[in-house]
Amino acid sequence: MSDSTIIKRLLRTTAAIASIALLFAGSANADIPKELYDALGVSKGASPKELYEAITKRYYDPAQGHGEGKYAEYWSPVPFSQYLDPDTYYTPPSAPAKVATREECIKCHKDETKGWVHSWEQSVHANLDEIRKLTKDDPRFYKKELIQEVENNLRSMGKLKEGQNLKEVSCIDCHVGIGAEKGSHKEDLRLPDAAACGVCHLQQFAERESERDTLTWPSTDVHGKKIDPVWPPGRPSHALDYQANVELATWAAMEDRSIADGCTMCHINQNRCDTCHTRHQFSATEARKPEACGYCHNGADHNEYENYMMSKHGTVYETHSDEWDWNLPLKDAVSKGKQTAPTCAFCHMEYEGEFSHNVVRKVRWAFNPQEKIADNLEQGWYTDRSKSWVKTCRNCHSGKFAKSYLEFSDSGTISGLKKQIEVKGIMEALYKDKLLPGQTTNRPLPAKPEQDGPGEFFQLFMAKDNNPTTVELAYSKLWEQDLLQNYKGLFHVFPGGFTYTWGWAPLIQHYVEIQTENTKLRDFAKLKSQVATLESTVGRLKTASVLDLDSKMKQAVIGSLGSGMVLVGVGLVAWRRKQQTKG
Amino acid sequence: MSDSTIIKRLLRTTAAIASIALLFAGSANADIPKELYDALGVSKGASPKELYEAITKRYYDPAQGHGEGKYAEYWSPVPFSQYLDPDTYYTPPSAPAKVATREECIKCHKDETKGWVHSWEQSVHANLDEIRKLTKDDPRFYKKELIQEVENNLRSMGKLKEGQNLKEVSCIDCHVGIGAEKGSHKEDLRLPDAAACGVCHLQQFAERESERDTLTWPSTDVHGKKIDPVWPPGRPSHALDYQANVELATWAAMEDRSIADGCTMCHINQNRCDTCHTRHQFSATEARKPEACGYCHNGADHNEYENYMMSKHGTVYETHSDEWDWNLPLKDAVSKGKQTAPTCAFCHMEYEGEFSHNVVRKVRWAFNPQEKIADNLEQGWYTDRSKSWVKTCRNCHSGKFAKSYLEFSDSGTISGLKKQIEVKGIMEALYKDKLLPGQTTNRPLPAKPEQDGPGEFFQLFMAKDNNPTTVELAYSKLWEQDLLQNYKGLFHVFPGGFTYTWGWAPLIQHYVEIQTENTKLRDFAKLKSQVATLESTVGRLKTASVLDLDSKMKQAVIGSLGSGMVLVGVGLVAWRRKQQTKG
Amino acid sequence: MSDSTIIKRLLRTTAAIASIALLFAGSANADIPKELYDALGVSKGASPKELYEAITKRYYDPAQGHGEGKYAEYWSPVPFSQYLDPDTYYTPPSAPAKVATREECIKCHKDETKGWVHSWEQSVHANLDEIRKLTKDDPRFYKKELIQEVENNLRSMGKLKEGQNLKEVSCIDCHVGIGAEKGSHKEDLRLPDAAACGVCHLQQFAERESERDTLTWPSTDVHGKKIDPVWPPGRPSHALDYQANVELATWAAMEDRSIADGCTMCHINQNRCDTCHTRHQFSATEARKPEACGYCHNGADHNEYENYMMSKHGTVYETHSDEWDWNLPLKDAVSKGKQTAPTCAFCHMEYEGEFSHNVVRKVRWAFNPQEKIADNLEQGWYTDRSKSWVKTCRNCHSGKFAKSYLEFSDSGTISGLKKQIEVKGIMEALYKDKLLPGQTTNRPLPAKPEQDGPGEFFQLFMAKDNNPTTVELAYSKLWEQDLLQNYKGLFHVFPGGFTYTWGWAPLIQHYVEIQTENTKLRDFAKLKSQVATLESTVGRLKTASVLDLDSKMKQAVIGSLGSGMVLVGVGLVAWRRKQQTKG
Repeated sequence: MSDSTIIKRLLRTTAAIASIALLFAGSANADIPKELYDALGVSKGASPKELYEAITKRYYDPAQGHGEGKYAEYWSPVPFSQYLDPDTYYTPPSAPAKVATREECIKCHKDETKGWVHSWEQSVHANLDEIRKLTKDDPRFYKKELIQEVENNLRSMGKLKEGQNLKEVSCIDCHVGIGAEKGSHKEDLRLPDAAACGVCHLQQFAERESERDTLTWPSTDVHGKKIDPVWPPGRPSHALDYQANVELATWAAMEDRSIADGCTMCHINQNRCDTCHTRHQFSATEARKPEACGYCHNGADHNEYENYMMSKHGTVYETHSDEWDWNLPLKDAVSKGKQTAPTCAFCHMEYEGEFSHNVVRKVRWAFNPQEKIADNLEQGWYTDRSKSWVKTCRNCHSGKFAKSYLEFSDSGTISGLKKQIEVKGIMEALYKDKLLPGQTTNRPLPAKPEQDGPGEFFQLFMAKDNNPTTVELAYSKLWEQDLLQNYKGLFHVFPGGFTYTWGWAPLIQHYVEIQTENTKLRDFAKLKSQVATLESTVGRLKTASVLDLDSKMKQAVIGSLGSGMVLVGVGLVAWRRKQQTKG
Repeated sequence: MSDSTIIKRLLRTTAAIASIALLFAGSANADIPKELYDALGVSKGASPKELYEAITKRYYDPAQGHGEGKYAEYWSPVPFSQYLDPDTYYTPPSAPAKVATREECIKCHKDETKGWVHSWEQSVHANLDEIRKLTKDDPRFYKKELIQEVENNLRSMGKLKEGQNLKEVSCIDCHVGIGAEKGSHKEDLRLPDAAACGVCHLQQFAERESERDTLTWPSTDVHGKKIDPVWPPGRPSHALDYQANVELATWAAMEDRSIADGCTMCHINQNRCDTCHTRHQFSATEARKPEACGYCHNGADHNEYENYMMSKHGTVYETHSDEWDWNLPLKDAVSKGKQTAPTCAFCHMEYEGEFSHNVVRKVRWAFNPQEKIADNLEQGWYTDRSKSWVKTCRNCHSGKFAKSYLEFSDSGTISGLKKQIEVKGIMEALYKDKLLPGQTTNRPLPAKPEQDGPGEFFQLFMAKDNNPTTVELAYSKLWEQDLLQNYKGLFHVFPGGFTYTWGWAPLIQHYVEIQTENTKLRDFAKLKSQVATLESTVGRLKTASVLDLDSKMKQAVIGSLGSGMVLVGVGLVAWRRKQQTKG
Repeated sequence: MSDSTIIKRLLRTTAAIASIALLFAGSANADIPKELYDALGVSKGASPKELYEAITKRYYDPAQGHGEGKYAEYWSPVPFSQYLDPDTYYTPPSAPAKVATREECIKCHKDETKGWVHSWEQSVHANLDEIRKLTKDDPRFYKKELIQEVENNLRSMGKLKEGQNLKEVSCIDCHVGIGAEKGSHKEDLRLPDAAACGVCHLQQFAERESERDTLTWPSTDVHGKKIDPVWPPGRPSHALDYQANVELATWAAMEDRSIADGCTMCHINQNRCDTCHTRHQFSATEARKPEACGYCHNGADHNEYENYMMSKHGTVYETHSDEWDWNLPLKDAVSKGKQTAPTCAFCHMEYEGEFSHNVVRKVRWAFNPQEKIADNLEQGWYTDRSKSWVKTCRNCHSGKFAKSYLEFSDSGTISGLKKQIEVKGIMEALYKDKLLPGQTTNRPLPAKPEQDGPGEFFQLFMAKDNNPTTVELAYSKLWEQDLLQNYKGLFHVFPGGFTYTWGWAPLIQHYVEIQTENTKLRDFAKLKSQVATLESTVGRLKTASVLDLDSKMKQAVIGSLGSGMVLVGVGLVAWRRKQQTKG
């Protein structure tokens, strides 16, 4: 994407503000992490407009993770891609030709796509005045302040005049432009991205974008020695989850695009806000409930949802959450809302007592356990985060309890790592020794940009002939799934998740499969080699013996051996009889 | 079952109507698909009685799917079977001897089996008058009309006199006969089947039975060429799900009957209505919720429930459905009931804007993806159904969105099919080449009526010695489970369902297992063959060599070799020393 | 643990009672099973104090299952163990130094660990007076009587004076001592065990402890012949689940303690009451809901939760339980609370019409199906329990239905057992014949106190080199997981649980893996043996042939053979050419 395209996009959302002096607008909210301001070179006192422009400039920069990424030459989008990365691929519908007014959108779509409209009718967007009338005793009172904050942002960006209030947030405001009076289906319609939501919800957008800045992995180890950071800056996070997807060699290499884009269907938080706040109700209650997180955070390699739901935390959620007040902001959920167990949002959005849309500030093991992390857990970067976790747990548990459980989980995670390391060498040796079934005869290279290796990630999704082999999948699953499930089970406190059902037991299973197969493949190779030696020896023996004498020259030699021929004759008769019996 | 038995059964439910002129009764509801009327040769203006008799005549016909089916000689019912196919197997209890009145049923059973009675007390059946008093603003108001429709049916069938209303629906009405005043436990008690429910709920019964008529698979392909239909008429469907079960060779062949009848426990919608509307509350709310469908539609080869629940649709259901009005009829759920996400019932009972108990009118891939379907998706039969689906999706999504997602899902389904086709040939070749472990030495035939083959369906449930082998199960699972889960995951829009957890990843896993095992089995066979050749050659060499010289004749020959013996003597001494070292 | 320690503990909870004459106190509740009184040698008319002392004496006795158990020398506790077995390991925190009053606990912890305090605020403990004011029409009215019972117990134990009522149950009452006015964090703080709860909730504690006495397995078989009981007395049960854990050789042998203690995290019902009634709300509603049971009863070898939730019972729970009254005592749930389906608690806490905290009185197959049970199902001990089950089912089903389904389930369970027995012998033979991969070269013994064997329980959790092998895990899973899941699926009436998804299908899968691997391992061993024979034969042939002639002596012999050498020369040249082509 060219620079001019970026600028065009920026203009699309912020065009009206460009020439307006924003003396009246207050600064953006002070809770946004300092790291974001520093990274963007914006002062804490910047106006909403200034902050928004700085954030979106980076947000739309292909060099900083926007769009199709570095492997673009290897894959092609499908028609459905326009809903996954609307900035890059969305095209307005070819029909109807109609230019619709603000009111007409609602009127027509109440017939055309009634679900949309009825969802919106239940949103805050459709009920601003109801919110404005709330009194302090209403759990949703805080939303009244949010509306004022939104209006402040819009004023700063020139979307509202001084003194003007937001009348409504209707179809046209998000799908054409804030405050637009009409729009053409064929030309003006757009699919809102996170930046579109961010115009109004600047603080939440900024918090989310700050994940790029607060997650910078240490470049020195526990002894102060220089190391490569475990992850690139800002990763893994929601803020760069689309980049993480399209810049994954396996994803780019996959021929079966619907399957590949199944992965994309979750990896779009970078692009869209409605994976948590489903359109068009955009409910905060929904996003606060574990099921919202569970849509993505489930299954083979990050089964947080299952672990949470089956934990004691989840048990209390399941049995008592109908008595909790879900309309309160997170910070009041426990103290005022009768919430008696944590939810995903409560623990992961919290950091040092504050709640925000940055969920990576306490990350230590991140997506997957690695030796580079295990070896440095005592380094300050990690211990600081561990201490922050203990504070989170102390909402309901003693510090002693929390600390002992975190250590317990670290220890169990390392137990898994140790088993992985044991079998890693076995896999590498099998590959190096070319002992994998079909390795020398029937193993194609994976499609580019993927590269071959023993038990690689791509092998879980792409297979052709003898690439990969069964034993490799056992290893892929061990390091990419079991190890992770073991860790997730431990830290989400579901015993079954790291003992006999998930995590540990499957890890042991795959360890055993690798060990067994290693022995069997080597036993087989040895036997093959023995047979080859035998064949060679027997070949020589045969040549040396009287059995192969069929040339005149040989006949002559034999002739000279004399009575030896008598013996040969006897042997051949016996062998022929045996053959006939078999047949 | 003989014709006279069918007539007897018909009489049991409709006896009282036979001789009554039904001039007063209106025609059955116009919403029932035309295909049913055509198939039964009944006019659209037929009375409820005429329609009911035509439907039940077919319903009870063994030649059209009723009862024990074509494999009856191979299996035997168990005592519990009487609850699965009550028409064929139910016998009244041997005690008590009591002949009970209408009131006595309730009175005694409130002590005996109180759960029954308390469930019934919460049903519409026990509260007709409460329903009759409802006003238009009550979400259940439509049930008032349903009662009138029921009474109309009963009048037509001579169960109510003109002007007479239904007082109640009590134990005796369903378990002895509508309007009966008393009944004998030992003689009169019956277990109601779908036809028993259909006397009152004729429209719903007729809609369900219309599945036999609306699901007729095309007999020409996309080029107009004659082909065998993919499925028999009316299959797969709820209306013939019992037949589908008992006429499955695997089911009939299974020795372990409790396991086989575990399958039957779901395959009884043909026989009973209470798998969705659990007795004795018979709740419409229950049947509208995804969990009702999930009781059967889960697991290895049709995991619709898991996919739905983990989809965004399911997420919204889980987080917001407590705010929805479940008492409204389906057609009003979105527009009046605050329903913000579809349920199973909403999408599958809908067809061209109408809702009914026929859920197969938009079926395309049906139970399982097959080449015969993939190759003909552009045929009119399929494209019509695809268009009907887009209309369904357009309750909440744009047509462009819906179309692109259906194409996305078709494409991903075909990706799975392609991998299956790749390994199908491998399996057939292994079987033909007799290379499966134990195939020539330890592989019994399956019990009749099942037949042997490589990676067959029966192998998932029946195993003996080396039938099946591990590699075959990999293939059985690939084509009968992974392929289906991949498809169901795609169409129910749960990314994990067709990427890394279910569907695709297991399909790849089994693909890899088959490819690996194919290579290994052939490598082993080759080595065995090499060894056999060696043995043969060595056998000949041995015979030809001096080692086997034990007869007087040979001794004589050797004697003539002279100094050769010296060498042999040296050799044997050396070999013996080696043996001793080993031991 | 020494006797003096036991006494110390007894004193800690009952110290104040020792010298008080308890003439005024009534006897403990008559519903507690007679077996408990008999086992403890206490009369039915004993005072609460007498009963409590007798129970706790046994409860704290290491010889009767308390504490670290018989394998203590093999394992070490971790810091988190203090929360799993507080009696043995808990130490008060080292800070703060503060001695806090009753009021200060609440005040400080509302800041420090607010979740605790807010949970407690919603408990009965914090609202005694609210309960005392309830009238008969309130579903919680029965709790008023419970408070009186608690006060009666406390009076008997000298914790309340005659006429004195309980004012509140606050932090200090459980964590320092009932009625204490202040306590030191560093010295007085304790973590309450089940006996601490039992001081007040004596009846519930006694019921739970009675599991030790009512579950005494028969010592004669169906023919009256002496046999070893299937399980030790009182096992398996909640009352001895901690003992069951620490006295399991596998658990004690495991090096990875966080994983091992993951098991412990459920096996603590013996020690604590809050695995069902989560602290600090201690909700009866929570414990009545299936999710409470599901926290432990899920997964690989006891998936009761999944089976229940997916059963028709669970379906009704999921779709209608929001209409049920969860505040009523269990006995009234169906008759007064609109409960239309059973929960775990309803069926398992019921016995002959009464409900209690003893859940093992109808146990027959217990944790796992075994031949010793299958062969004796017609013995009186088992048929009595079967009859009690039919009575339970008759809350909602006819006796005929219930009986036929129990037989159905027994039969399906036995089907699984038969398949296990088929492969058990195969595994034993492979082990005996030393045919497991690496068995003679690379198989270490498991850590003590575990012992080696083919397909043992420990192999699911501990692996090193070639112990275990893949085929053994197939067997471990078959007998320890599939067989159990099949049985649990059957008895919890979830068809998918014992047919195609869980239970049966995986059991068949593992059966097939074992049969296939047995054939393959024996085929390979045979081939190896053939090759060994060939090598030996060829070795002899080689020695006997002209190929090995390299010594002077041999040269001399060859010299005498004359023209034979010409032949040898030709043969070697040909072989060398072949080698060069290969390279």
